[in-house]
Amino acid sequence: MADTMQGLKRTHYCGEVTEAVIGSEVVVSGWVQRARNLGNLIFIDLRDRSGVVQLAFGDKTDRAIFEKAAGVRGEYVLMAKGVLRRRESVNKEIKTGEVEIEVTDLRVLAKSETPPFEIVDNTNVKEELRLKYRYLDLRRSPMQQALMARHRIVKIARDYFDKNDFVEIETPVLIKSTPEGARDYLVPSRVHPGEFYALPQSPQLYKQLLMLSGYDRYMQVARCFRDEDLRADRQPEFTQIDIEMSFVDEEDVMTMNEGFIKKVFHEVLGVEVQTPFRRMPYDEAMSRYGVDKPDTRFGLELCDLTDLLKNTEFKVFAGATAEGYSVRGINVKGAAATLTRKEIDKLTDFVKTYRAKGLAFTRFTADGVSSSFEKFLTEDEVKAIHERMGAEEGDVLLIVADKNKVVFDSLGALRNHLAKMLHLYEEGTFDFLWVTDFPLFEYDEEEGRWVAMHHPFTSPKLSDVDKLLSDPGHTYARAYDIVLNGVELGGGSIRISDPEIQQKMFEAIGLTDEQAQERFGFLLNAFKYGVPPHGGMAYGLDRLVMLMLGKDSIKEVIAFPKVQNASDLMTDCPSPVDQKDLDVLHIRVQDDK
Amino acid sequence: MADTMQGLKRTHYCGEVTEAVIGSEVVVSGWVQRARNLGNLIFIDLRDRSGVVQLAFGDKTDRAIFEKAAGVRGEYVLMAKGVLRRRESVNKEIKTGEVEIEVTDLRVLAKSETPPFEIVDNTNVKEELRLKYRYLDLRRSPMQQALMARHRIVKIARDYFDKNDFVEIETPVLIKSTPEGARDYLVPSRVHPGEFYALPQSPQLYKQLLMLSGYDRYMQVARCFRDEDLRADRQPEFTQIDIEMSFVDEEDVMTMNEGFIKKVFHEVLGVEVQTPFRRMPYDEAMSRYGVDKPDTRFGLELCDLTDLLKNTEFKVFAGATAEGYSVRGINVKGAAATLTRKEIDKLTDFVKTYRAKGLAFTRFTADGVSSSFEKFLTEDEVKAIHERMGAEEGDVLLIVADKNKVVFDSLGALRNHLAKMLHLYEEGTFDFLWVTDFPLFEYDEEEGRWVAMHHPFTSPKLSDVDKLLSDPGHTYARAYDIVLNGVELGGGSIRISDPEIQQKMFEAIGLTDEQAQERFGFLLNAFKYGVPPHGGMAYGLDRLVMLMLGKDSIKEVIAFPKVQNASDLMTDCPSPVDQKDLDVLHIRVQDDK
Repeated sequence: MADTMQGLKRTHYCGEVTEAVIGSEVVVSGWVQRARNLGNLIFIDLRDRSGVVQLAFGDKTDRAIFEKAAGVRGEYVLMAKGVLRRRESVNKEIKTGEVEIEVTDLRVLAKSETPPFEIVDNTNVKEELRLKYRYLDLRRSPMQQALMARHRIVKIARDYFDKNDFVEIETPVLIKSTPEGARDYLVPSRVHPGEFYALPQSPQLYKQLLMLSGYDRYMQVARCFRDEDLRADRQPEFTQIDIEMSFVDEEDVMTMNEGFIKKVFHEVLGVEVQTPFRRMPYDEAMSRYGVDKPDTRFGLELCDLTDLLKNTEFKVFAGATAEGYSVRGINVKGAAATLTRKEIDKLTDFVKTYRAKGLAFTRFTADGVSSSFEKFLTEDEVKAIHERMGAEEGDVLLIVADKNKVVFDSLGALRNHLAKMLHLYEEGTFDFLWVTDFPLFEYDEEEGRWVAMHHPFTSPKLSDVDKLLSDPGHTYARAYDIVLNGVELGGGSIRISDPEIQQKMFEAIGLTDEQAQERFGFLLNAFKYGVPPHGGMAYGLDRLVMLMLGKDSIKEVIAFPKVQNASDLMTDCPSPVDQKDLDVLHIRVQDDK
Repeated sequence: MADTMQGLKRTHYCGEVTEAVIGSEVVVSGWVQRARNLGNLIFIDLRDRSGVVQLAFGDKTDRAIFEKAAGVRGEYVLMAKGVLRRRESVNKEIKTGEVEIEVTDLRVLAKSETPPFEIVDNTNVKEELRLKYRYLDLRRSPMQQALMARHRIVKIARDYFDKNDFVEIETPVLIKSTPEGARDYLVPSRVHPGEFYALPQSPQLYKQLLMLSGYDRYMQVARCFRDEDLRADRQPEFTQIDIEMSFVDEEDVMTMNEGFIKKVFHEVLGVEVQTPFRRMPYDEAMSRYGVDKPDTRFGLELCDLTDLLKNTEFKVFAGATAEGYSVRGINVKGAAATLTRKEIDKLTDFVKTYRAKGLAFTRFTADGVSSSFEKFLTEDEVKAIHERMGAEEGDVLLIVADKNKVVFDSLGALRNHLAKMLHLYEEGTFDFLWVTDFPLFEYDEEEGRWVAMHHPFTSPKLSDVDKLLSDPGHTYARAYDIVLNGVELGGGSIRISDPEIQQKMFEAIGLTDEQAQERFGFLLNAFKYGVPPHGGMAYGLDRLVMLMLGKDSIKEVIAFPKVQNASDLMTDCPSPVDQKDLDVLHIRVQDDK
């Protein structure tokens, strides 16, 4: 059996024993980062979440202790007592690099096999292995720093909203399935054969009910669930900072949240965020940047050329005259040297992944102008394009002509791609933006109906209420998204608080009265009893933490994430269960054959 | 359509407009508690979560506003602007009872139908109706106060543990099913046909892995799930304050948690809790109180009479000589006047619900001694019983002879029952106790095997390690429960940190190596890489809040609870789902016919 701690109690974390405590007796504990045996000297680097400290064993060390130290291997768990002294060869890279502990008592609390990968900051180990042995991966300092920072961020959120009179209220995880939007995870009921709970995609309905119940200001750090096919930045379960306020308008909600962002960036990163953030209507964001979450750290704005090409005979651009089509371009200033023909070919492949048929270009070099399309246009048309795009020597014009959606998707993505490639922004800058005035609906081609762009409880602009049913395509919402460096951090809206408008909303998205009643009956009923004006916001916590810490993936800020196919490599879950456990739940697995 | 808030912004909560702001213009908003129309005067009590304020309309009120006020009914949502003035008839019962608002602008933001029950503090409405209209029930001040207090309690917990270097880490909700203990809720996987996630009964394994990963101090306010048949104080989903610490022993964990309890009782209730709490070994708790969570606010201790009756010829008590049987009693001091024969009959029925066959008694009144059993005993036996139980005039002795379990269950419950009936403790006192040294195992008659009394990761006492397999019935655990007024608030233990002991533990509860590997393989593997000594604690938050606020049911401190059959009356959930949604999940509902 291993040694016990009997008679010892930790006095310091490893990273805390600095020069200030030299000469004191200290007790530390942790994992062996490295053990070096020089024959008559042994040095062990002991690691805990605070850092590393050197244990020293030498001539004066009791022989039994020295022998024990000689047997120590990487990742063993030790507790050591000793006096802190100045060390001979100083290590300036770590906090405790000036000192070492002259060990007088050593306990081997647990041994360790050789881990499948080394516990070091920079690891090249592939992600699958890291996730299978997540408990070892989590020992690496970057993971520990990330999870401790995440804790701080969430703590600050709670402190901030508490100070502003928000009440954290826990809403249920076993709820009613209300199919609208993404797919629910379902939970079979044992007590009610053939019936199911759903896991919440968000606490949306509950927080609205809490407003109706008079709680006035609600917040919750809420686990949410979506049974989607995962993209890189999605998880089947994720965490939302969820808030809702009564008797407020858009500005109240946005101002409150700016205060939060300002505080959390100041306290965690020491970054001073300027408030209020810029506001930009959705239509402007789309036409200038091609996306509703523009990265505004750099220019590369889209330029609309459609009107210039109304009468062109060039077939590729001619479609642009049809409704819903356009020709737009980006002037990549001074990039002609970098964007060679070969590079432009790569960019063409890039935009094709967004369904663009091609990428028209003009390069302005000292040697002259080369273009893929200008020869098909009239001189006037070419001149007009150059003028509008402000073309000068050294520039490269990149142009897409297609359906609006394709133009926006491809140029929006191309902007970000180019900015990264050409280093058009500084890492470590944080550029915030509110995107406002979203369309209330978008048309779902597959389902052949209008669907809510955010969710069906979003209030239309007061001036657009009459258009709800007659002109849904031009109805705007009291919705706002918070965007950071081109990533949607969160979003919210003022909600519908008028039962009649709520009913019209359901009608607009094609829900019959019966369907609306079946799914949201409790909400519609509740709305009969006095709903205050209310609105709120939800942040994707995982993304917020990821961006703040400069990580590339939310997996780097989640303790136990799942992989793309929604499985957990560490516990090997999901997994089959015994038939008897399914019998109790009145379900059977379908034979797919 | 309803009025808008346009041009108005709330300046105060209703409960905040006190004498200090007399003469100022204020804007308030909320729900109509009561509207009184006296013809030329109208008074409206407006309510929000902070309290109630009176709106006044009279001669000087603009006629349009007066007319609007006249149309206002209960639970309408209003926003009102006006000047605060001293009112004529003072109401001393409320904070704002000295003032009223002379209204100059009134907005009816939403109307309300007449609610199915009145929104008042004391309601006699039956629970089903309250839960069906939970959103209205939640408007009642006692519910609002309870949820706001719950928020404060949780906030204080987070602040306390944060200050003590605990890191809140979110563990997954979609996890691997590890059948051991209560039944898991299962979640079918869409991506992996025939496989399932489980919802966690607690984050136990994850928090142990986090210790192994070096996080040192973990806490989480964690949602947990158990698919059990509900008792009054259980919910299918409940919340735990979950903590875990490394390099600690029992005393470290208990001291840390005493600090939390001290702080939360001080800050929320102004109650000064004395620390350290008493510690009482499990065996002592059982023999003195019959339960492992004794209510120590009063005496009524159990008295063991078994040895006195070793040779008795009285058949009912004679069984007591067999192993595992005993005769024990309670002396209810001075209760002879209250505990009449008729009352004792009722108590007999009471203990029968705990499977006792009967309740033997002796009453000592001024008129003499009456007893149900003494005539069957020898004079010496009777004398010995009286002596040991300290019987005096006015006392009532109540005795049960049966299997130990039945004796403890029935007398343990009888103690609490009598104390309540005889008012043996003051409401509002809080009596804390640690129960320690639990048996590691209990024998499951149904399954015919030893099972872990807490969970299979609980460490045996170091001195008992050798008995794990040879004498499980006498192996004690490094476990501790925190008990408040006879209710188990939480519990924890030092965990097994030695892989060999963990393997023996699984063996002791009858898990084959294969089963252990299948269910807990990831944990057993993890344990190969250096586990620190660690231990922790979990509180039932719902219960803690319930006890602190003096509520009778956890439903009074949960926003949206479920009822006994695990359904939610408000949303009517669980509910059937479309077959196509089940097809996607590869499951079918079994036809039970």
